[in-house]
Amino acid sequence: MTDKRVKKVVLAYSGGLDTSIILKWLQTNYQAEVVTFTADLGQGEELEPAREKALLLGIKPENIFIEDLREEFVRDYVFPMFRANAQYEGLYLLGTSIARPLIAKKQIEIAEKTGADAVSHGATGKGNDQVRFELGYYALKPDVTVIAPWREWDLTSRTKLIEFAEMNQIPIAKDKRGDAPFSVDANLLHTSSEGKVLEDPADEVPEYVFSRSVSPEAAPDKPTYITIDFEKGDPVAIDGEKLSPATLLTKLNKLGGENGIGRLDLVENRFVGMKSRGMYETPGGTILWYAHRAIEQVTLDRGAAHLKDELMPKYAELIYNGFWFSPERELLQKLIDASQEFVTGQVRLKLYKGGVHIVGRESPFSLYDQDLVTFEDGAVAYDHRDAEGFIRLNALRLRTLAQRKRKLGQ
Amino acid sequence: MTDKRVKKVVLAYSGGLDTSIILKWLQTNYQAEVVTFTADLGQGEELEPAREKALLLGIKPENIFIEDLREEFVRDYVFPMFRANAQYEGLYLLGTSIARPLIAKKQIEIAEKTGADAVSHGATGKGNDQVRFELGYYALKPDVTVIAPWREWDLTSRTKLIEFAEMNQIPIAKDKRGDAPFSVDANLLHTSSEGKVLEDPADEVPEYVFSRSVSPEAAPDKPTYITIDFEKGDPVAIDGEKLSPATLLTKLNKLGGENGIGRLDLVENRFVGMKSRGMYETPGGTILWYAHRAIEQVTLDRGAAHLKDELMPKYAELIYNGFWFSPERELLQKLIDASQEFVTGQVRLKLYKGGVHIVGRESPFSLYDQDLVTFEDGAVAYDHRDAEGFIRLNALRLRTLAQRKRKLGQ
Amino acid sequence: MTDKRVKKVVLAYSGGLDTSIILKWLQTNYQAEVVTFTADLGQGEELEPAREKALLLGIKPENIFIEDLREEFVRDYVFPMFRANAQYEGLYLLGTSIARPLIAKKQIEIAEKTGADAVSHGATGKGNDQVRFELGYYALKPDVTVIAPWREWDLTSRTKLIEFAEMNQIPIAKDKRGDAPFSVDANLLHTSSEGKVLEDPADEVPEYVFSRSVSPEAAPDKPTYITIDFEKGDPVAIDGEKLSPATLLTKLNKLGGENGIGRLDLVENRFVGMKSRGMYETPGGTILWYAHRAIEQVTLDRGAAHLKDELMPKYAELIYNGFWFSPERELLQKLIDASQEFVTGQVRLKLYKGGVHIVGRESPFSLYDQDLVTFEDGAVAYDHRDAEGFIRLNALRLRTLAQRKRKLGQ
Amino acid sequence: MTDKRVKKVVLAYSGGLDTSIILKWLQTNYQAEVVTFTADLGQGEELEPAREKALLLGIKPENIFIEDLREEFVRDYVFPMFRANAQYEGLYLLGTSIARPLIAKKQIEIAEKTGADAVSHGATGKGNDQVRFELGYYALKPDVTVIAPWREWDLTSRTKLIEFAEMNQIPIAKDKRGDAPFSVDANLLHTSSEGKVLEDPADEVPEYVFSRSVSPEAAPDKPTYITIDFEKGDPVAIDGEKLSPATLLTKLNKLGGENGIGRLDLVENRFVGMKSRGMYETPGGTILWYAHRAIEQVTLDRGAAHLKDELMPKYAELIYNGFWFSPERELLQKLIDASQEFVTGQVRLKLYKGGVHIVGRESPFSLYDQDLVTFEDGAVAYDHRDAEGFIRLNALRLRTLAQRKRKLGQ
Repeated sequence: MTDKRVKKVVLAYSGGLDTSIILKWLQTNYQAEVVTFTADLGQGEELEPAREKALLLGIKPENIFIEDLREEFVRDYVFPMFRANAQYEGLYLLGTSIARPLIAKKQIEIAEKTGADAVSHGATGKGNDQVRFELGYYALKPDVTVIAPWREWDLTSRTKLIEFAEMNQIPIAKDKRGDAPFSVDANLLHTSSEGKVLEDPADEVPEYVFSRSVSPEAAPDKPTYITIDFEKGDPVAIDGEKLSPATLLTKLNKLGGENGIGRLDLVENRFVGMKSRGMYETPGGTILWYAHRAIEQVTLDRGAAHLKDELMPKYAELIYNGFWFSPERELLQKLIDASQEFVTGQVRLKLYKGGVHIVGRESPFSLYDQDLVTFEDGAVAYDHRDAEGFIRLNALRLRTLAQRKRKLGQ
Repeated sequence: MTDKRVKKVVLAYSGGLDTSIILKWLQTNYQAEVVTFTADLGQGEELEPAREKALLLGIKPENIFIEDLREEFVRDYVFPMFRANAQYEGLYLLGTSIARPLIAKKQIEIAEKTGADAVSHGATGKGNDQVRFELGYYALKPDVTVIAPWREWDLTSRTKLIEFAEMNQIPIAKDKRGDAPFSVDANLLHTSSEGKVLEDPADEVPEYVFSRSVSPEAAPDKPTYITIDFEKGDPVAIDGEKLSPATLLTKLNKLGGENGIGRLDLVENRFVGMKSRGMYETPGGTILWYAHRAIEQVTLDRGAAHLKDELMPKYAELIYNGFWFSPERELLQKLIDASQEFVTGQVRLKLYKGGVHIVGRESPFSLYDQDLVTFEDGAVAYDHRDAEGFIRLNALRLRTLAQRKRKLGQ
Repeated sequence: MTDKRVKKVVLAYSGGLDTSIILKWLQTNYQAEVVTFTADLGQGEELEPAREKALLLGIKPENIFIEDLREEFVRDYVFPMFRANAQYEGLYLLGTSIARPLIAKKQIEIAEKTGADAVSHGATGKGNDQVRFELGYYALKPDVTVIAPWREWDLTSRTKLIEFAEMNQIPIAKDKRGDAPFSVDANLLHTSSEGKVLEDPADEVPEYVFSRSVSPEAAPDKPTYITIDFEKGDPVAIDGEKLSPATLLTKLNKLGGENGIGRLDLVENRFVGMKSRGMYETPGGTILWYAHRAIEQVTLDRGAAHLKDELMPKYAELIYNGFWFSPERELLQKLIDASQEFVTGQVRLKLYKGGVHIVGRESPFSLYDQDLVTFEDGAVAYDHRDAEGFIRLNALRLRTLAQRKRKLGQ
Repeated sequence: MTDKRVKKVVLAYSGGLDTSIILKWLQTNYQAEVVTFTADLGQGEELEPAREKALLLGIKPENIFIEDLREEFVRDYVFPMFRANAQYEGLYLLGTSIARPLIAKKQIEIAEKTGADAVSHGATGKGNDQVRFELGYYALKPDVTVIAPWREWDLTSRTKLIEFAEMNQIPIAKDKRGDAPFSVDANLLHTSSEGKVLEDPADEVPEYVFSRSVSPEAAPDKPTYITIDFEKGDPVAIDGEKLSPATLLTKLNKLGGENGIGRLDLVENRFVGMKSRGMYETPGGTILWYAHRAIEQVTLDRGAAHLKDELMPKYAELIYNGFWFSPERELLQKLIDASQEFVTGQVRLKLYKGGVHIVGRESPFSLYDQDLVTFEDGAVAYDHRDAEGFIRLNALRLRTLAQRKRKLGQ
């Protein structure tokens, strides 16, 4: 619990009911000047209503910050992560995790600009997001005061929240009075849903929970074929059309969503210690993951590829746990980025009723090219007679072990 | 090249043209007594014709060994590997790799029984299988002589092979006279195809290459729901019906194949140093991989799960490279097996047009169970106020780093 | 801060001033019945005075538990850890870390036996030991209440502590009135010292800090030669004399201490987030570490040895961080223990003025034995012509990369 | 066996008897023009006699290349490796392994310059060095022809070699007529000895084998204190005196050698599959290893430090196995180098009778500095009350596991 006095606090503000209550609570409880920060990360909501609402709640115009972060988000966070083929616990594409560091960074930048001494967020006290926000804050502004209302206040039920809102003239949409049947987080990479109706991991996720993809059953009966061009590990074009990072991911989301791609029902291990069940929709990201694997298959050497595969679980865990701004994540990123120098070329994919199928890949830097192992004088790098020596020396220690066993009569 | 004299050689014999040629070549070239070993690993071929053919080629009845290895294969090789969620290069379920050690083991057992001093196989000199066979041979019988005809003989073209066959009265099926448009390996876990028509990784695999799955497009328009029961990490029942390992995998293959599941178009890195492009069909194995992940999600602790994820790439690489009978694979297996003590419960899956969708899982040993963190006296293990300290100590070193940066004016 | 009522608390009690103050504070502050647990882990102090002191402070005789844990400590904690060649941050032999889980385990056993609902320890709020104790408590008795006085009370200065002691008739030895120039922890494996005079990592540790080793300069001018016999990874005899685990480590400590061996001046990274500087004396453990490496050199296969080396840093970190009773440590231990089956034989060492020098090793299971690669018929497993193929196939991917570079004109 | 015709071959030529025989054999056996390359890597031998000898053996003056590589060797090979704290199999500082890639690189450069189509070296067919040389050759010039005389010729005994030398008028020093009692490799980083008198790993290495260090017993009775300054991970000064890389290592060698430092008796696992016993003297390198660890202790964050520790065994193995010029070594190097940005400061060490003792370290970038966690307003980053939450959330999953056990009655 923060017992420190704070003067000015930068709040990650969505414009929704919950963060509006936080806004008011910061004003009344801390007597602090509130600065709001509202970002477009592709969550699919208008930002201007957030401005109106902030003004209504008494925020000074110069304290309202609204920013479209979509390109930065995809270029500097999503794409670098996909260079690593990152999957948390073998399946999860880290859609929520990767957005938090960017929001934290922007809040700190605004805090520096406005002379704020505190930051605040609307993440609950039981999840991973509080960790991701706050590790970001501390890593970038070590003396900042962090206010986490959900861990501090006594508004511990929906009823109390609504009462507080009413008492403070915060407008309440009709459908917000009761508890939501599940909670949602969305950005350009994914939508996640969890809680309530999703809580029993034995029950299938109801169709109404999904918001950005049709079900595989409802997807078209004909496959969609697309190509994705990569340059140095990042996608740059779809079907030959060059696109900016956010535009490209938006288009992949459309293609994926229409074809029922990217739904994931997961029980995962939170950093804070318990398991949770979530439903994720990552239509474009899922396509991208397969496509990136495919282009690496022809352009990456085995040594580099296997090193990346061995480091990936740790890298994904760091992002999941909120350590984006840590030396170890940054060092791993250096290694990963350096590996992508020749990861350039085109991948062809078939999208069909929930499935992403690699059907072709080519690259000017392909290592699959047979000419590469034939030299000018006709000599070739591979002579099958070499295999005998290769096998025999690889077997040597195993034969020694077997001889020991035999000697021991085992 | 083996210049050693050998007296008796155990050949991995399929009964097909190529291994029949090898059989004859071993007789004529080495003047060696040949013992044939033909195994049923679920490749879907009758074994008795192999016996007839061997007799025809002059093999003594007591030198013909035919064995149904399907249960042993699935129980002692496939299932242990799936406990690890093994995927080579992020995608490949190791269907060919996992069959070789068992064949090698059986050949060596027969060599010991029959007093043979040599073993032989029909794998080419450019692939991984020669390595997998021979590392197995050497690890189990260190003084064995290995004969790899494809690396030794001068039958370097189809024409020469056919000539040799004709000269030696080996029956030749009509469709075997020319080069096959692609080569195939099959067992209960998968079918792999490679070569010729598959050689250009830019071209989509033609539909006629696939043999044990319909295309996703041709699969039923209605999803199939199934349950799989696990005990200590291994599947034991489908839809409540207890099944032996091989029977269970056979059924999963049927379910997967009918629903267009398990096709993989891959460019992979061979142990012998070059890239190759293959097409794999692993219908049942693909279902199993997802199902096993799902049951681990609720029964495995995070520490165990992440340790397994970090070790998986190395484990998969060992199997791919042919090191099944190595201390390091065996040590990793000990760790993996020990982790599966509570991996028991039921997973529900939806199979639909190429996709495997986890839709539910439950377990008597679930760690997701909320009661586990509530104690008799009502105290709970999770208090959201704890999160503050947790975050602050995790942040401590990051704040220290940030202070250093600030001090340096960076 | 624990606001829960507790009825009976098991305290890790040394008999010293600090834990006596805690004892009294638990009685007065919590009105709890106190059970004391005093263990001999080889710290070199009499235990009976602790009983007297406990009685004096009003503990019922049946609530006083005193136990000699030396054999259990060495056999079940120290030796298993040394099988892994564990070093934290490349240098530290984990002497303090490895003792905490055993103490925690015993406290919980006593809590179960006496019906206590709480446990308490005397570790400070800034160190690793609080974590190690408490993770152990929680892992073994999940509903236990943990009382950590140093994080809770207001006795925040030496003066206040002494006042509290005087007010409560706790006897105070003369030299305990002021702050100690450094704090010490000792057990059969090591002595650690930290704080105050050691705080500046630029200053050499003063000689008076060391308590169980002479300085290298003061050690004998003649080297001491010893042999250590190992069985399955554990030392069992010195100079041919079979010794129990604790007796053996005691003897190694004597030999090491006399020869100035095992001093380490370290700045380490604590789990709680800051760096600390410590001085460690691990005379016997240092000898053991080298001896175990030496016997593994001849008995362990490369595959097993390198796997162990790669996993060691993680294993050491888990112990350092207090996760002895975690699935991941236990799984790693399974792998490590299984690797030791043939780690049997004799190592000869020279101890001289701070140095441990391996000078010889032999084993009935040696893999170094040249006969192992020569077979009955005179054939050998190693033919130097095999090296060509081995190198050429290992080089294949590097040549392919070089050809790509050349093609690109790089 | 190379059956290719070669026109011009670049030989790694020491000027000694063995490489002179190779020179002649290349001329007579291959009818090839020979280019000699002789390098000073600090092995402590004059280079000019090699020129005389080459001329004598008929090498054209323009085909004789002699180069002092000491600075390049230490700056671009030794120091980068020490940034990683590399130790093979926990003990070996890789003195031989690290020199081979540089020699290979220079041979290839000369081959390109002189239009040679082949390279040759004098490493035997049983060791690691042939692999290291040849992987380097192939990685840098994929179409090069490699001639490894020891694997090809029939000069398989000392007698035959001497006969060949006599027949070809190669001068033979008296002490070279018989087999050497052990073989030696030396460079600025270390001297290694192996073979014959060292073959039984049970026997202590005789004192006459050592060539660049006194025994610990013969070292001075007074310790020598030195300081080493580091900049970005590399040593730059001793006792305040700035020194070039090679000069600095030379000085450390002198200091180490005089104090009996850096002797290592090792049984190691060769890449080619067998174990070998070697004796290494690495006086300066041993000091450097400890000093680098010490400066990292105060300047490196825990996350970076532990990541480096986990990757080190793999990095060391790559160098040992000859994969210096591989993508995976280069990627790891990128990570390692990036970690060294702040590894700057001074370490104080005591050298005494074989021991290296860190006695102090300081840095302008120290993270140990307590001020770093205290902020302007007096707030501190560490509050011991935070530890409770930290521990409780770290314990959460362990408590859940314990509850499951309890529920199961275990």
